[in-house]
Amino acid sequence: MRIAQLAPLAESVPPHLYGGTELVVSLLTEGLVERGHEVTLFASGDSVTQAELVSVTKCGLREQISEPIRRWQAYDQRLLIELERRKNQFDIIHNHMGYQALPFLRHFDCKIVSTNHNPIKKYCADIYLHSRNLPFVAISNAYKQLNYPDELNYVATIYNGINTNLYPIYTDTTREYLLFLGRLCEDKGTLAAIEIAQSLGIYLKIAGKVDEADHRYFEEQIKPRIGTNNVQYVGEVNFDQKLDLYSKAIALLAPVNFDEPFGLVLVEALATGTPILALDRGAIKEIVTDKETGIIGKTKEDLILRYQEISRISKHTCREHAIKNFSHSNMISQYEALYKKLCL
Amino acid sequence: MRIAQLAPLAESVPPHLYGGTELVVSLLTEGLVERGHEVTLFASGDSVTQAELVSVTKCGLREQISEPIRRWQAYDQRLLIELERRKNQFDIIHNHMGYQALPFLRHFDCKIVSTNHNPIKKYCADIYLHSRNLPFVAISNAYKQLNYPDELNYVATIYNGINTNLYPIYTDTTREYLLFLGRLCEDKGTLAAIEIAQSLGIYLKIAGKVDEADHRYFEEQIKPRIGTNNVQYVGEVNFDQKLDLYSKAIALLAPVNFDEPFGLVLVEALATGTPILALDRGAIKEIVTDKETGIIGKTKEDLILRYQEISRISKHTCREHAIKNFSHSNMISQYEALYKKLCL
Repeated sequence: MRIAQLAPLAESVPPHLYGGTELVVSLLTEGLVERGHEVTLFASGDSVTQAELVSVTKCGLREQISEPIRRWQAYDQRLLIELERRKNQFDIIHNHMGYQALPFLRHFDCKIVSTNHNPIKKYCADIYLHSRNLPFVAISNAYKQLNYPDELNYVATIYNGINTNLYPIYTDTTREYLLFLGRLCEDKGTLAAIEIAQSLGIYLKIAGKVDEADHRYFEEQIKPRIGTNNVQYVGEVNFDQKLDLYSKAIALLAPVNFDEPFGLVLVEALATGTPILALDRGAIKEIVTDKETGIIGKTKEDLILRYQEISRISKHTCREHAIKNFSHSNMISQYEALYKKLCL
Repeated sequence: MRIAQLAPLAESVPPHLYGGTELVVSLLTEGLVERGHEVTLFASGDSVTQAELVSVTKCGLREQISEPIRRWQAYDQRLLIELERRKNQFDIIHNHMGYQALPFLRHFDCKIVSTNHNPIKKYCADIYLHSRNLPFVAISNAYKQLNYPDELNYVATIYNGINTNLYPIYTDTTREYLLFLGRLCEDKGTLAAIEIAQSLGIYLKIAGKVDEADHRYFEEQIKPRIGTNNVQYVGEVNFDQKLDLYSKAIALLAPVNFDEPFGLVLVEALATGTPILALDRGAIKEIVTDKETGIIGKTKEDLILRYQEISRISKHTCREHAIKNFSHSNMISQYEALYKKLCL
């Protein structure tokens, strides 16, 4: 098939560091090329791909700090104009850019599907609702339930996938500490992770970035608790450092405080044989199976009480679960099937 | 006629303080209503108008400082969705929003005209060129010459107008100082204004805001020269303060350092009987007539040498020139004629 992938312009595809959407777009694009499809990737100019690359920026906009944010809109529009110019060359256009693309795509007389990678916030809900007839893909059943299930035309739920080959299973390493990995913020439950670890008397390693919006949370809630009491903050980490952190982690702590629509970090942990301690919010139950690949609790206290059950969880079961349900090849096959169905 | 006016969302219509485009949109909208047209204004929710108001924001986005700039795009799109919903109710849609609206308007099957209020910068030029078949209005001949005259479909040049009734002519006041009014920045030539006034030994008053982007210019070039040597900076001014400044000004200094496409401040000065000392850039010669309503020079030195000629310029000639060429009723009539022509 002739397929266009439309990525967000914030980061390159794949991203240099952070960028879950851009990572998924990269895996999908490369996988489709390898399966013989003719793929064109619309993304930032420093993106690395075997597909044909169409771009209007040198690099991801978040790296172009000299560019006022007010102008991002122009680059989105220019990328969409390039897409429009070529629209008749594709059997299907796959939009990962978000609401920014919808009012444009509505006017294209060709097959289109949009994956919603982010929750639909109030300020942009009208834009989604205005495009309610376009086909959407949810990244989890929880995502769909939380984001206008009756109003939008969801045609499939397709979980994000990772390249599980890149994540070794660690069976010989000594599992020494609990791990919190992700953005340090109230939503992700960084403070709850510290409280759980301290209550259990187990060392906690925290890795991830602090966004400007979460600076106050970090300064007031987290910073006073690190360095002492067996809590260490290792800062932002690259891929190799991340694997090293997983390799010696007893479990990943995910006491999330909001209805997370998906969690790539959970899938990565499982692939390395690391079980998960998580609160039952959003898509958690779709990724983690209680007692088999982790412990799911209603409250922090649940997790503390049931912590010992972790020792009964098999690292191999965790990895097999990740491969079976969240491998990129799985994701690619599902999108391939969906494209075919939409083009019938 | 049934007319839609599409304003930018940065400021209310009319603006609370700054916002040349929003001021022009307001004068045009109210004038058209008063002439019996059925007008719908698409603008921020705190806009004040006799037309029907359609809005998606409580106030101008520049005032909603809690709203991340990244989201402005969503509000623009939502306003355009509201416009699209009603598009069949209008004989013509008049776009003042800029490039943001163009990719949407291209798909509307109705009469559209866009006034370009700002120079077309490189980052958004492709968006204009992609809409080259839409009719555009230039705000001066200089604007047109400087902004893709051969590529874009300019259907008219219509000067911005002001409500000259609001600007009294001051004939009895003692004219005491030279005046610089506008954004303090390199483009507008604030430093050159100081150098001219000091060379002539005449007191200079400077009024206007300092944008964040011009902070360094202000600190390094301007601040060391104010407070001493007969140079006073009075800060930002409201409408009444502005009139008071004009009333005692010998002349307005406009030693602009770029090809300004128009200059509302020049027209305001003329309406109060204040002549202009300006450098020959952009649309200056379309607004000021050398020796009749001001002195136009090629260099600062020209203006200093010819300064004495100012005394021969009649305040009444200045005002008559403003009324004849730059009154809002004139502007409204020209747009009215253009709408009719486009709807034939």
